[in-house]
Amino acid sequence: MARPVIVTGFEPFGGEKSNASWEAVRLLPDEVEGHPIHKIKLPVVFGASGDIVESAIRELEPAAVLSVGEAGGRTCVTPERVAVNRMVARIPDNDGAQPQGDPVVEGGPDAYLSTLPLDDAVSAMSAAGVPSKVSDTAGLYVCNQVMYRVLHAVRSCGLKIPAGFAHVPYTPIQTVRKPERASLSSELSSAGLYSILITSLA
Amino acid sequence: MARPVIVTGFEPFGGEKSNASWEAVRLLPDEVEGHPIHKIKLPVVFGASGDIVESAIRELEPAAVLSVGEAGGRTCVTPERVAVNRMVARIPDNDGAQPQGDPVVEGGPDAYLSTLPLDDAVSAMSAAGVPSKVSDTAGLYVCNQVMYRVLHAVRSCGLKIPAGFAHVPYTPIQTVRKPERASLSSELSSAGLYSILITSLA
Amino acid sequence: MARPVIVTGFEPFGGEKSNASWEAVRLLPDEVEGHPIHKIKLPVVFGASGDIVESAIRELEPAAVLSVGEAGGRTCVTPERVAVNRMVARIPDNDGAQPQGDPVVEGGPDAYLSTLPLDDAVSAMSAAGVPSKVSDTAGLYVCNQVMYRVLHAVRSCGLKIPAGFAHVPYTPIQTVRKPERASLSSELSSAGLYSILITSLA
Amino acid sequence: MARPVIVTGFEPFGGEKSNASWEAVRLLPDEVEGHPIHKIKLPVVFGASGDIVESAIRELEPAAVLSVGEAGGRTCVTPERVAVNRMVARIPDNDGAQPQGDPVVEGGPDAYLSTLPLDDAVSAMSAAGVPSKVSDTAGLYVCNQVMYRVLHAVRSCGLKIPAGFAHVPYTPIQTVRKPERASLSSELSSAGLYSILITSLA
Repeated sequence: MARPVIVTGFEPFGGEKSNASWEAVRLLPDEVEGHPIHKIKLPVVFGASGDIVESAIRELEPAAVLSVGEAGGRTCVTPERVAVNRMVARIPDNDGAQPQGDPVVEGGPDAYLSTLPLDDAVSAMSAAGVPSKVSDTAGLYVCNQVMYRVLHAVRSCGLKIPAGFAHVPYTPIQTVRKPERASLSSELSSAGLYSILITSLA
Repeated sequence: MARPVIVTGFEPFGGEKSNASWEAVRLLPDEVEGHPIHKIKLPVVFGASGDIVESAIRELEPAAVLSVGEAGGRTCVTPERVAVNRMVARIPDNDGAQPQGDPVVEGGPDAYLSTLPLDDAVSAMSAAGVPSKVSDTAGLYVCNQVMYRVLHAVRSCGLKIPAGFAHVPYTPIQTVRKPERASLSSELSSAGLYSILITSLA
Repeated sequence: MARPVIVTGFEPFGGEKSNASWEAVRLLPDEVEGHPIHKIKLPVVFGASGDIVESAIRELEPAAVLSVGEAGGRTCVTPERVAVNRMVARIPDNDGAQPQGDPVVEGGPDAYLSTLPLDDAVSAMSAAGVPSKVSDTAGLYVCNQVMYRVLHAVRSCGLKIPAGFAHVPYTPIQTVRKPERASLSSELSSAGLYSILITSLA
Repeated sequence: MARPVIVTGFEPFGGEKSNASWEAVRLLPDEVEGHPIHKIKLPVVFGASGDIVESAIRELEPAAVLSVGEAGGRTCVTPERVAVNRMVARIPDNDGAQPQGDPVVEGGPDAYLSTLPLDDAVSAMSAAGVPSKVSDTAGLYVCNQVMYRVLHAVRSCGLKIPAGFAHVPYTPIQTVRKPERASLSSELSSAGLYSILITSLA
């Protein structure tokens, strides 16, 4: 059997009852291009979320890693270009931590560029009818921290694989109480993630 | 048989290949609460669009009228509060006309308030999982003109019926080439329109 | 001496320490084109604010009326096109009232169009270096109510004068604690109001 | 005499007649905390702009470097957190180049974090009445490239100095023809830059 692909989403946070990232991840099939998809639901907690995904990478030696987060307010699926070695939290994480500028990895490089084929992924999503664009900032909250930890672990393990992060918009149901925010159905977000995986494994 | 309900949508304009309003309208069933739904696709043309809907109102004596338009950039279904007796066009209509401040109806009142139950409609849409809010401006393009003509015709005919207008967002496919704009699936927009009709006929 | 021009601004509300509208109004000179400028600072209170401006109109028989309000989040000076006969408050006014759909004037027309020369005013502001555009909705809070009361009083008194409303953005100091909101200096907002007055009296 | 401080702004681009960054830079005094301010107007050209600022850094061994660019649409002064080793141009630069993903410096690190005291600078600007916040992305156009080149040169020269980049909004006059975009007066933007310099040299 081919090596697995790791795909992560997040548990709810910020008072939400669901997290659009996990809603999209769990709609993915169990396999892509012959690779089993290993799905992990991460806590919205600095440190712990990174530890979990790093352990999985070290253990599974995956063929690709795609971490996914929710970006309330965005209109489309946005693969991220870069993860920055800083943590800044506007609201506490689900464990109460609220870092104000600490590095993700002490002594790590200032940032890592995604190794996903960003432009090809956007082209594939567009062809599939999924609105998308590359994003140049993943923020500095738990999402960016997971992306940094993913790329740091992949680099540390000497893996030469496509790895990175994508944000998905709120689901429509999440915006019923904040109707001025954009949304995208989980089906479309999930289709976008699938296009990213297909493109990455091509 | 009960009197029909008139629901209108628009043909494409502004270089688009489809119009989100018609995509949502055509997904509506053929009947609501025992009333046949009479669907009309209107041209995006000042004057002509208003003439068509006015003729239909005079001829069919409907139980309700809901006109629908596309509001590119909006995030949710927005029933409109008021139609203003002015036409201002940033781009020409599909017949080349581009009024810059003319009244919709010479000598008509400055504006008409919607006679749809706006707050109840938003509550019903929210309960149905459709993001929505009341909008306080329908712009001054063909949409506002149709809404004004609808309310003017209803008033002129002495009909005491719920009548008004709702805007729906772009469909996702429309935003593939402008991914920074919000979208909503036609299924959800259509479900929202159905909630408005149910609420209006209650 | 020529008949006065009435210009109104508002006291602070919503937790703010100042109100951009009054900051702009108080920078206006005491006279324009030979007309004394009669400045009134209105309370952010439904009813009372309208009563005050209506009394002033009845008493002074002005040559023009320009009411001004603050529109947090807007980027430029926006003369308003229409006042709607409805009051809807997202937050209570400074007296605790929070109407949810009541008419401004029981039995009044659905709306009044501004009698200010809107397009000429925008042209004049642009020529003066003040960013501006016509707005198609004044909201339904105290600002819209004042605008409706102004136009209703002017009409009731049989005055044939330019009368209406303009919104101005936050001042820069107001946005220090909400830096993602746009601002405009009081000097520029005031220059914009002056251009509206000049244009209206031409 | 103390070592100079280098401050750069840009020439106009994108069809504009002025560039808000240079308008703000040229209002700075000639000295700050005893350091002469060495102002450079850079071309909006990939490569050449970086070469110019790198030469100045090597030649002058400055006490600090602050490069400044215009961010049309932003509302406040935004010191940038990170420069990324990628160039992506939506529109050609002033020399016709339009890179689509090339590195700024072949073989350079993926990104550099600003060495300016970002949080202190924002506090100082707020205290001075200048709306500001830290930005997490400088885009990938000529601005980001200059920031990367500045930080790369400072690192290469072994200088331990505060160095980085800040974006300023459009000036009001620039927004007269696009009034829905935010602006900030050059005086306030310049005051913000001065606060950044003071904070950096403290």
